[in-house]
Amino acid sequence: MRTKSWWGWGWADQALDQAGSDQLARRVSAFLPLDGQVAPVPDVERLRRPRVAQPPIEARCDNLARVSHSYGKAYRDVIRNLRNDFPNPPDWIAYPRNENEIEETLDWAAHVGAAIIPYGGGTSVVGGVEFRDPDRPFVTLDLGRMRAVVELDAACLAVRAQAGIDGPALEAALREKDLTLRHYPQSFEFSTLGGWLATRAGGHFATGRTRIDDFVESLRIVTPVGISESLRVPASGAGPSPDRFWLGSEGALGIITEAWMRVQKRPAFRSRATISFAEYQAGVAASKDLAQSGLMPANCRLLDPLESLIAADSDSPMAALLLAFESADHPVESALDRAIELCRAHGGQVAPRETSWRGNFLRAPYLRDALARLGVVVETFETACTWGSFEQLHAAVLDAVSPAIATCRFTHVYPDGPAPYFTVYAPGRRGAELEIWDELKARVSEAVVANGGTITHHHAIGRDHNPWYQRQRPEPFGTVLRAAKRSLDPQRLLNPGVLGL
Amino acid sequence: MRTKSWWGWGWADQALDQAGSDQLARRVSAFLPLDGQVAPVPDVERLRRPRVAQPPIEARCDNLARVSHSYGKAYRDVIRNLRNDFPNPPDWIAYPRNENEIEETLDWAAHVGAAIIPYGGGTSVVGGVEFRDPDRPFVTLDLGRMRAVVELDAACLAVRAQAGIDGPALEAALREKDLTLRHYPQSFEFSTLGGWLATRAGGHFATGRTRIDDFVESLRIVTPVGISESLRVPASGAGPSPDRFWLGSEGALGIITEAWMRVQKRPAFRSRATISFAEYQAGVAASKDLAQSGLMPANCRLLDPLESLIAADSDSPMAALLLAFESADHPVESALDRAIELCRAHGGQVAPRETSWRGNFLRAPYLRDALARLGVVVETFETACTWGSFEQLHAAVLDAVSPAIATCRFTHVYPDGPAPYFTVYAPGRRGAELEIWDELKARVSEAVVANGGTITHHHAIGRDHNPWYQRQRPEPFGTVLRAAKRSLDPQRLLNPGVLGL
Repeated sequence: MRTKSWWGWGWADQALDQAGSDQLARRVSAFLPLDGQVAPVPDVERLRRPRVAQPPIEARCDNLARVSHSYGKAYRDVIRNLRNDFPNPPDWIAYPRNENEIEETLDWAAHVGAAIIPYGGGTSVVGGVEFRDPDRPFVTLDLGRMRAVVELDAACLAVRAQAGIDGPALEAALREKDLTLRHYPQSFEFSTLGGWLATRAGGHFATGRTRIDDFVESLRIVTPVGISESLRVPASGAGPSPDRFWLGSEGALGIITEAWMRVQKRPAFRSRATISFAEYQAGVAASKDLAQSGLMPANCRLLDPLESLIAADSDSPMAALLLAFESADHPVESALDRAIELCRAHGGQVAPRETSWRGNFLRAPYLRDALARLGVVVETFETACTWGSFEQLHAAVLDAVSPAIATCRFTHVYPDGPAPYFTVYAPGRRGAELEIWDELKARVSEAVVANGGTITHHHAIGRDHNPWYQRQRPEPFGTVLRAAKRSLDPQRLLNPGVLGL
Repeated sequence: MRTKSWWGWGWADQALDQAGSDQLARRVSAFLPLDGQVAPVPDVERLRRPRVAQPPIEARCDNLARVSHSYGKAYRDVIRNLRNDFPNPPDWIAYPRNENEIEETLDWAAHVGAAIIPYGGGTSVVGGVEFRDPDRPFVTLDLGRMRAVVELDAACLAVRAQAGIDGPALEAALREKDLTLRHYPQSFEFSTLGGWLATRAGGHFATGRTRIDDFVESLRIVTPVGISESLRVPASGAGPSPDRFWLGSEGALGIITEAWMRVQKRPAFRSRATISFAEYQAGVAASKDLAQSGLMPANCRLLDPLESLIAADSDSPMAALLLAFESADHPVESALDRAIELCRAHGGQVAPRETSWRGNFLRAPYLRDALARLGVVVETFETACTWGSFEQLHAAVLDAVSPAIATCRFTHVYPDGPAPYFTVYAPGRRGAELEIWDELKARVSEAVVANGGTITHHHAIGRDHNPWYQRQRPEPFGTVLRAAKRSLDPQRLLNPGVLGL
């Protein structure tokens, strides 16, 4: 069986080898100073002994399970892994096979005073699965045993699946019926349905139904006061949406165990093109027109000139707009033609070859890990703002990052504004990586929120975004969340600390 | 100034006159027994004196204001109006001009122990604006003075407007910039932005963005613990959506005062057709294919044969599918062509003339009032269910209504199911209309929920749907709503009784 990396992203066998790392170092040293070292991957050292007895279900407390469940997959997580820095590992990792076992574990946790950290694929980049209270025992609840496709209603284009299923397993089951969820976050191979729902993940479509929320028919959630199951209907106007309340609750208000999800027929028609813009602002203007056109491209990702060079192997510093249309029912060439026409009005030109972006997209986190080992501070952050705010927000972010460099792409575009996604590359200093990043992160977060951006479009809040979230969230909604927390989870069993709860 | 009807729907001058009523009686008597009487519109009688002094802002307590704010516009409201049946009129109708005056009124209400019923256009058909506690003074808070368009961001296709603005006023302001919200519930002429948001109204588009929820950028809400204002961004993944929590809260968790709404360029391209189906089930199957095609028709309304005859002046008992496509950017003939092709595969035929539906749609409530005066029990109800549940739900509803008759149309269709909308016509008995309707309503509601339908797709819960809502709503979400109510509105000032809160 293929092994996942305990210290870095994804599959262990995909981490860059010495030759790959050397090659990367040569490329990067042109614009960032490197010290010539590569941080080694350490052996896992002895951890603090579990402070509580085993939970009443299958559970592990070996070092490998504990370190690989201590953090998510952010840059700061990789650095701490490489430093063997595990002051607060989970006491146990528990693997429920059904809702009963989750409820048993919650009862047990209430009894022994432990916290429960729900865990899907563990790909959080915002401290979503990392418990930070050193004084309270805690169990990481890994949903990986609950990964069944329970029911497939092909006539209604819907699937009922357990929360622990990962992207490839879900797609494999759907493919048998020529169906697809078409939800491809960068973490697709590793992250889970439950994780997507709990964090309101952003997906495949650059326009329209951009977020996992839009595909939910109904949810089942285990809470300390009982199971919540919403009615499975295509739409309902019966009061505030229960599903929308738990979507984005990040495990603090219940553990999503199952969902009915809307799926689609697999696309049979596809058209795509890459459009180059000599001027970045022209690409932005074209993206806006496309987002407002009602053409609804599946892909509409504008890479700024630097992102184009670094992430898409472009040979010239031009902004590149990656456009794609798809349909299971009808040809989409005319939509692409009209989109190209809109782009030409802004000086865009169809590029002679397509930008090879998808492969790089999936490979990017492995490069990030290799760069981290070379001593580069490298991380991503993202937001959404109105078109009217974008130019100033973009300038403020570059300014906040300076003298380090940041690249920008649009992951999603809406009629009223884009979702810009930044990657920052800064010179590191061995031993001070976390401080450098944390200070940089604070600066860019201020730049984002001071210029009309949300603190996150789809990375979620976790613990890292909480200071800015507290300022962004309307205070009466904070009152609602705290009241809900007290009522649903009076002993604060569930992921204490995320969303400030 | 044109006068609104105090006892029935809409404009006073649109109520059927004697000749119109006679003509209607002749048509209807073919299938329903009539007693030849027409209930007169009574003079308003003396009402209970206000039990509290005037609120601290502009307010009325004259009989006309009080009776016209006592009920919504359901059949049972019309009947009670015609009977001069006002045991519990509002003590005052208050007209705030700004948020300060709302807050003053809330403070005052807390002091004198009064309840506050937020009121937009007053077109609720579910008891949403009718207070039912006879022992507590209450003030109806009419938002009609807060009807400004505050800001128009044409570049980002967004408008900021006050909650009390009605459909025509908002569209008039948008039309100046060649924009439109394209939200046309049947109540469009009278209902308000705030009312649409508070009740999650269903709108113009039969597919895709069917509901007002989808057009919200941000909300401002006055609550007893302070003002909530969400960040205006095109999308955010920062925790559960605050807006989605207040959408559908029906005035029980706060008073929506202002919203940033997404608007659109006015459509420049339109294509439409009416498709006839000899077999209703073939029309249903074609609707399903269309909903799953990704063609996203703006209109996709299937009328069953009886609805077609009664509501659309058809000359043959065929099911009729009203199809329309629209775009501000590009021609839509090819989409219509493909849609017609899909319908032909189910035996559908393009009708020689278009069904004249929109005029009848807006006129229907006036006919309802005239029928009510003729003694017919006539009302609508609606739901949504999966395609797999529809046939059985439809049969169960017709069975529950029998021997009265019900017609059905789809107001909206989704990839996973339709939103069927029923109109029932039953023989009445003078003096027993409410009992007859309430019993019928209970029977059809049971049929709906027993067969996988939601108790409402877009009419909201109000007070009338509460018994079924309590069964449908996941109990832990009831816990959340009650906790929110206690925290935001500990004195239960706001619309007590809706949603069971």
